[in-house]
Amino acid sequence: MKITERQQKLSDLIDEKLAELNLPGEPSLLYDPVRYTLELAGKRVRPYLTLIGCGICGGEVEEALPAALSIELLHNFTLLHDDIMDRADTRRGNPSVFKKWNSNTAILSGDAMYAKAFKQLQYYGYSGLYNKEQYRTIVDIFLDSAERVCEGQAYDLMFENQSDVRIEEYIQMIEGKTAALISGALAIGGAVTGTEDSTLDELRFVGKKAGIAFQIQDDLLDAIADPEKFGKKRGGDIIEGKKTYLTLLALERCNNKQRKQLKKILTDDKNSATDVDTVIDIYHDLNIIEDTNKAVQYHYQEAVQHLEEFDDSEYKEEIINFFNHLISREY
Amino acid sequence: MKITERQQKLSDLIDEKLAELNLPGEPSLLYDPVRYTLELAGKRVRPYLTLIGCGICGGEVEEALPAALSIELLHNFTLLHDDIMDRADTRRGNPSVFKKWNSNTAILSGDAMYAKAFKQLQYYGYSGLYNKEQYRTIVDIFLDSAERVCEGQAYDLMFENQSDVRIEEYIQMIEGKTAALISGALAIGGAVTGTEDSTLDELRFVGKKAGIAFQIQDDLLDAIADPEKFGKKRGGDIIEGKKTYLTLLALERCNNKQRKQLKKILTDDKNSATDVDTVIDIYHDLNIIEDTNKAVQYHYQEAVQHLEEFDDSEYKEEIINFFNHLISREY
Repeated sequence: MKITERQQKLSDLIDEKLAELNLPGEPSLLYDPVRYTLELAGKRVRPYLTLIGCGICGGEVEEALPAALSIELLHNFTLLHDDIMDRADTRRGNPSVFKKWNSNTAILSGDAMYAKAFKQLQYYGYSGLYNKEQYRTIVDIFLDSAERVCEGQAYDLMFENQSDVRIEEYIQMIEGKTAALISGALAIGGAVTGTEDSTLDELRFVGKKAGIAFQIQDDLLDAIADPEKFGKKRGGDIIEGKKTYLTLLALERCNNKQRKQLKKILTDDKNSATDVDTVIDIYHDLNIIEDTNKAVQYHYQEAVQHLEEFDDSEYKEEIINFFNHLISREY
Repeated sequence: MKITERQQKLSDLIDEKLAELNLPGEPSLLYDPVRYTLELAGKRVRPYLTLIGCGICGGEVEEALPAALSIELLHNFTLLHDDIMDRADTRRGNPSVFKKWNSNTAILSGDAMYAKAFKQLQYYGYSGLYNKEQYRTIVDIFLDSAERVCEGQAYDLMFENQSDVRIEEYIQMIEGKTAALISGALAIGGAVTGTEDSTLDELRFVGKKAGIAFQIQDDLLDAIADPEKFGKKRGGDIIEGKKTYLTLLALERCNNKQRKQLKKILTDDKNSATDVDTVIDIYHDLNIIEDTNKAVQYHYQEAVQHLEEFDDSEYKEEIINFFNHLISREY
């Protein structure tokens, strides 16, 4: 994605702040994997959204940096633990901590990262710029996100052994697993400015919708994106028999023959390229690709519409552009 | 251990508060293991110490209940994750979550418990009885404990692959792994009363010393306690080749022949009853049992001496009695 000047500025702020983290050298088993994880070049979307959430409410974005870092650390903590649960060998094109070290190290350094994430928020506890209520609200948003991410991941694990998953259940799962942190990222940025609860709710809503759109789009891109651009094998989710927005929508619409084929592929976790083609043919027969794309558009547009209610500012322009870019992303 | 009337009252308060936790029913994969863990009858030593820490500083112990619960939840979270790392099949005489469910469930429900632990502290964020500084101090103590427990566990894992561990390194490890939570439990109770920093430091010191004593005593009891009372096989640590206060002290004092024997047993993790006898014979030759017992006494007494500086109260009497009981525990 083309990066704007403002994005670059915000991204630099985040990188500088991350570099100041000053993690202890010892115990190395605990902090080396944390350092390693943070050095893998992530997209830093969540902390970027925290700064935007602050800016759009009229705050100084620098003041939102500790909150932005707390969200980025929280996100990375969830990745460390998710990679163990998914037995994922790679992360951002590099060996995952789980693979490079082992499961125990990934558990423990994840736990340490969780505490470090929380610790960032103590800035608001110490700074005289924030009263008790503001500080508490910031902590509330953080905890709520942390809890809902766990809940989403739990639903995802439960789906593996659940034969029928409804689209609404799937949406509930991604509202936790993906959207809770996007939503929390925006809201915590707003909370730093001490804005009123109704504005925080708006930010939460925007984040939720964008998060849902983003995840459904990820499901879609797995089926249709150019593997070279997307960085993952085409149909990877189908090969693993994962339940996605597309498979679940297909299951709602299919005839008996198609259902049999889909169910077989969904219960296997080592499918072939032919299976991928079979499923994608079914998608085309049932208009799944087009309607999934419509769902993505719908959720992004809801996010953008709610952003329109904010006062005009460079940050409002920035985030609307950002979402519009995301709508048309191909990887 | 004989339980006093006051202990019973504090213990009832903790149980009532735990029963009010009202964990959500869904996702069951996340919250069933949390409920299961909390229902296993733990000794609840840490929340008891939090109430004592509050009482000894002149506070209303009921006000310390959310902090007490946060510490108990934090402790249980560490147990959930430790059991995965140690591949421990049982916990408090029952199957561990790791065994009863699986590793993924133990990781994730531990993470959720961590968030629930933090969440308890929001009581102090909402209550008008606490100002921002008090609330922040409470959070600080919690975070510091959480972080130091992780560090202690990391040192413990590192020791497995470290051929020479000095006694001082071992003490540093248990200061994190065991003592940080005991220390945090007492200090957070004091912080609820808004007492001054120097008093919190005293409480931290008392907790640290008691925690160190408790852990060294645990190492000692593993070698000498009546297995029926202690609830573990005699010499379990020796069988697993664990580095303990006793083995490390023995390694500092032994001759070449003894070193060879000890090293062999420490590098194996499946030793026999004969190996246990060999090691215990070496302990006797080198006066290890007696000197370890002296170390236990020393650390407990340091804790008690620092308690003497507090004003007389029922809680001061209670905790001194409690430590004196611990000094002579046989299991």
